Amino acid sequence: MNSFRVKTLAIEAGTPIVVLTKEDAAELGVRSSSRVKVKANGRELTAILNIATKSMKKRTVGVFDEVRTLLKIRDNDSIEIDVAPFPSSLQYIRNKLMGRRLNFEEINEIVKDIVEANLKETEIASFVTCLHLQGLDLDETTSLTNAMVESGHHLDIDRHPIVDKHSIGGVPGDKTSLLLVPILAAAGVVIPKSSSRAITSAAGTADKAEVLMPVDLSVNEMTKVVHKTNGCLVWGGALDLAPADDIFVQIEFPLSIDPLLLPSIMSKKRAANVDYLVVDIPTGRASKIRTVGEADLLAKDFIELGRRVNIKTQCTVTNGEQPIGYAVGPALEAREALEVLMRKRIVPELMDKVCHIAGALLEMVGRHDGVELAAEVLKSGKAEKKMREIIDQQGGDGKIRPEDIAVGEHTFNLVSENSGSIRWIDTTALVEVARAAGAPKDREAGVILNKKFGENVKKSEKLLTVYSSKSRKLERTIEMLQAMPVFAVGEKGEMLIHRVKEVPPTKAFILER
Amino acid sequence: MNSFRVKTLAIEAGTPIVVLTKEDAAELGVRSSSRVKVKANGRELTAILNIATKSMKKRTVGVFDEVRTLLKIRDNDSIEIDVAPFPSSLQYIRNKLMGRRLNFEEINEIVKDIVEANLKETEIASFVTCLHLQGLDLDETTSLTNAMVESGHHLDIDRHPIVDKHSIGGVPGDKTSLLLVPILAAAGVVIPKSSSRAITSAAGTADKAEVLMPVDLSVNEMTKVVHKTNGCLVWGGALDLAPADDIFVQIEFPLSIDPLLLPSIMSKKRAANVDYLVVDIPTGRASKIRTVGEADLLAKDFIELGRRVNIKTQCTVTNGEQPIGYAVGPALEAREALEVLMRKRIVPELMDKVCHIAGALLEMVGRHDGVELAAEVLKSGKAEKKMREIIDQQGGDGKIRPEDIAVGEHTFNLVSENSGSIRWIDTTALVEVARAAGAPKDREAGVILNKKFGENVKKSEKLLTVYSSKSRKLERTIEMLQAMPVFAVGEKGEMLIHRVKEVPPTKAFILER
Repeated sequence: MNSFRVKTLAIEAGTPIVVLTKEDAAELGVRSSSRVKVKANGRELTAILNIATKSMKKRTVGVFDEVRTLLKIRDNDSIEIDVAPFPSSLQYIRNKLMGRRLNFEEINEIVKDIVEANLKETEIASFVTCLHLQGLDLDETTSLTNAMVESGHHLDIDRHPIVDKHSIGGVPGDKTSLLLVPILAAAGVVIPKSSSRAITSAAGTADKAEVLMPVDLSVNEMTKVVHKTNGCLVWGGALDLAPADDIFVQIEFPLSIDPLLLPSIMSKKRAANVDYLVVDIPTGRASKIRTVGEADLLAKDFIELGRRVNIKTQCTVTNGEQPIGYAVGPALEAREALEVLMRKRIVPELMDKVCHIAGALLEMVGRHDGVELAAEVLKSGKAEKKMREIIDQQGGDGKIRPEDIAVGEHTFNLVSENSGSIRWIDTTALVEVARAAGAPKDREAGVILNKKFGENVKKSEKLLTVYSSKSRKLERTIEMLQAMPVFAVGEKGEMLIHRVKEVPPTKAFILER
Repeated sequence: MNSFRVKTLAIEAGTPIVVLTKEDAAELGVRSSSRVKVKANGRELTAILNIATKSMKKRTVGVFDEVRTLLKIRDNDSIEIDVAPFPSSLQYIRNKLMGRRLNFEEINEIVKDIVEANLKETEIASFVTCLHLQGLDLDETTSLTNAMVESGHHLDIDRHPIVDKHSIGGVPGDKTSLLLVPILAAAGVVIPKSSSRAITSAAGTADKAEVLMPVDLSVNEMTKVVHKTNGCLVWGGALDLAPADDIFVQIEFPLSIDPLLLPSIMSKKRAANVDYLVVDIPTGRASKIRTVGEADLLAKDFIELGRRVNIKTQCTVTNGEQPIGYAVGPALEAREALEVLMRKRIVPELMDKVCHIAGALLEMVGRHDGVELAAEVLKSGKAEKKMREIIDQQGGDGKIRPEDIAVGEHTFNLVSENSGSIRWIDTTALVEVARAAGAPKDREAGVILNKKFGENVKKSEKLLTVYSSKSRKLERTIEMLQAMPVFAVGEKGEMLIHRVKEVPPTKAFILER
């Protein structure tokens, strides 16, 4: 038998890896990056082989951390290693590459093998690329959604109906969820909101919420908060609702492709046991979705997929041509949201967007005049009170004031070089500026806009302020602002957007989950 | 600065990897499987990050063998590590994923970054998948061919014209090159043949030649042999003519896709400075190419690509419906080839195929009646004499006799269960049987056919003999033969190939380079 003695290596590679000597590998008939089957303690997994080039003894196997924890093995344990056959899911990927449609059993096997690490990263990358290029029909999308639900954990909050909201992302400064959750919870509707951290944006909802309260809650802690307050604002990563999606995202991000948008979102909602859902589709020239026509087609798919996985779904197609509100960056956005909840500030477009989405959800669960009701809950201060309850329950300070929220001490004001009006705001450039200043990792970094689309501006008047915790980062951001104007200021009749003299840089890619 | 102390790990992963502690990674703003830039000794490379989960000191970096050798570093050296930006070639891959055609500069940058390990395996897999699904036009194919030539070593044999032959593979028992090289060399034509080991077949040309002589020659040794004999039969792997292709093949093989067939073959021929080339396209229901129509289309592309990279190219479309000759497996095939060269045996289809390909090459360099000339060189014994010279020059025993070639001591005869004639031979099953017996790794394993298509067979008459060095492997092969008949024996009028009662297994994939 092919028995080997374990030597733990204490390295995490993100995928299970074992290391053999060249001689042992040759004897098994495998080589570097081959797939091998590893058995111990009645458990079994597929690992990728690396080769030890010296210092390791024959019949010893070096194991990376993923293998150690999955097989529950220790130094000097004995494990079995053998050549791994190709997993059958690989044949299904090959079939898809030959243009075949996949059924549920096939897709489920692929997702299972992705989560259990039986497929190599290159094979997953090929599958994702194939989905991007050939597309998925709605049957395949449904299968993939259900398979992703089966592969992860489920939430079981026993107070129905449960409502939820999701934005496909792409518009900076969108702090809608920070207002939506307390409004709905205050209106007596259950909304256990989990959200993600930023991938390509300046701040994910979880990043913003974390400025106000802990968001890294366990399923039990989250359930308790919801039972007490009707709502919560937690980070979804710890809930493990979609382990396959976490792997897909790592592959999609560098490639700038996102073929799994629909199943990724809907599987997490299904795993969270959501009954009613509104998907927000910001639409604008620099958004993920550029035109209303595209947005409506996507909305149709969301609604039909929702029907198939038993989630009543509606969509809001909203204006994504400029940032929502004035603040971009975790702390700055949290502060703006808190000020609006406290009725210290009126930010019309943010309040309008929140009330329309909240209103849609209120009407879906049977309330009348949902938009007006949402506005009333916000105006009356009930939403603020609810938010402070949620903050308390999640372990934050429910008495937090806007001025308690620290923002970057290093600042820079960009002023207008001429007078006129704001002809457009480049939201892509705005996100890059905020990220260059340190967002989302630097919670205190970001941008406050002083002007929005159509407003008049005088020469030398302030257009925006950049905040950063680090002077070095602020300096880089100032350089960037020179090369990449966020605002276009001019007369109303000015038509030119820009002249293209050489191959232009490609547009930024928006991937948010 | 981000300076780290080196700790070598003596592990080979096939790609450059460095290991940092979780704290150091967080400080750099990177995480497991991020791409980092590593600098030392004036050298720089991109590596993938793994995370040390214990036992490594802060500000220490564990380096895998690939990083150690590329940067020429040792334990306790100091190296710089920083976040790596996305390589620009990744943007070109993204463009291709969006349906754009790529120009030479873009493709060249992609190939360069693949060879220099600046692109992740997932990104390369996505690129290869995209080429498979979207196809390459002839401009892109030409660019890819030239880029692959630029990325590798070149052969510089200063005796022109240089001729060469390549088979796209897929027919078992094809030992054409073992006869073709000595025939051409004996006729005074320079043919520095390098070939590959088996990937999916039972024996690559290099595997077969290695039974007769060493094939692992350096460029200098190979050049010397060619200068003395006009020919050689070496393994191409050591020549490093197409490092990018070696990476592509590892990704393509599990996915069963081969979009790089044309550039892969032609780049190696261009790097070897070939003037005249014949590409053999075996055509049959179980071959890589199924119909003559397909074969002609592929031939057209080879000829046009040859014109663009300055290699005069012709193709032979040959019968791939059954094995070439009777032997399948490295030693058995080498023995059959030697017997034919020695005129101890007549194997009509092998001799016909060899003479047609040799004849085409002879005519391309200006000889008349090439096919007859090739037959004459074989029949006269000049080819045998030349083969013995080549064997001697490559360090083998030029006096080798067929009976000196060891073959598997464990054998099994498959006999016919009824009488009739051979209606077809399942070449895919034949390859699987030979591989199950141990080929190509076990040089002595393989199959000798006793019957070919159309021949009469009596009940209990021998159909084939399996050879193996290991009785355990032979037993598995016998089981396999029961489930997977290689021969169909029946009356001439019998039409049925087989009945399909459930989802049939997919056909084997043929990938040879």
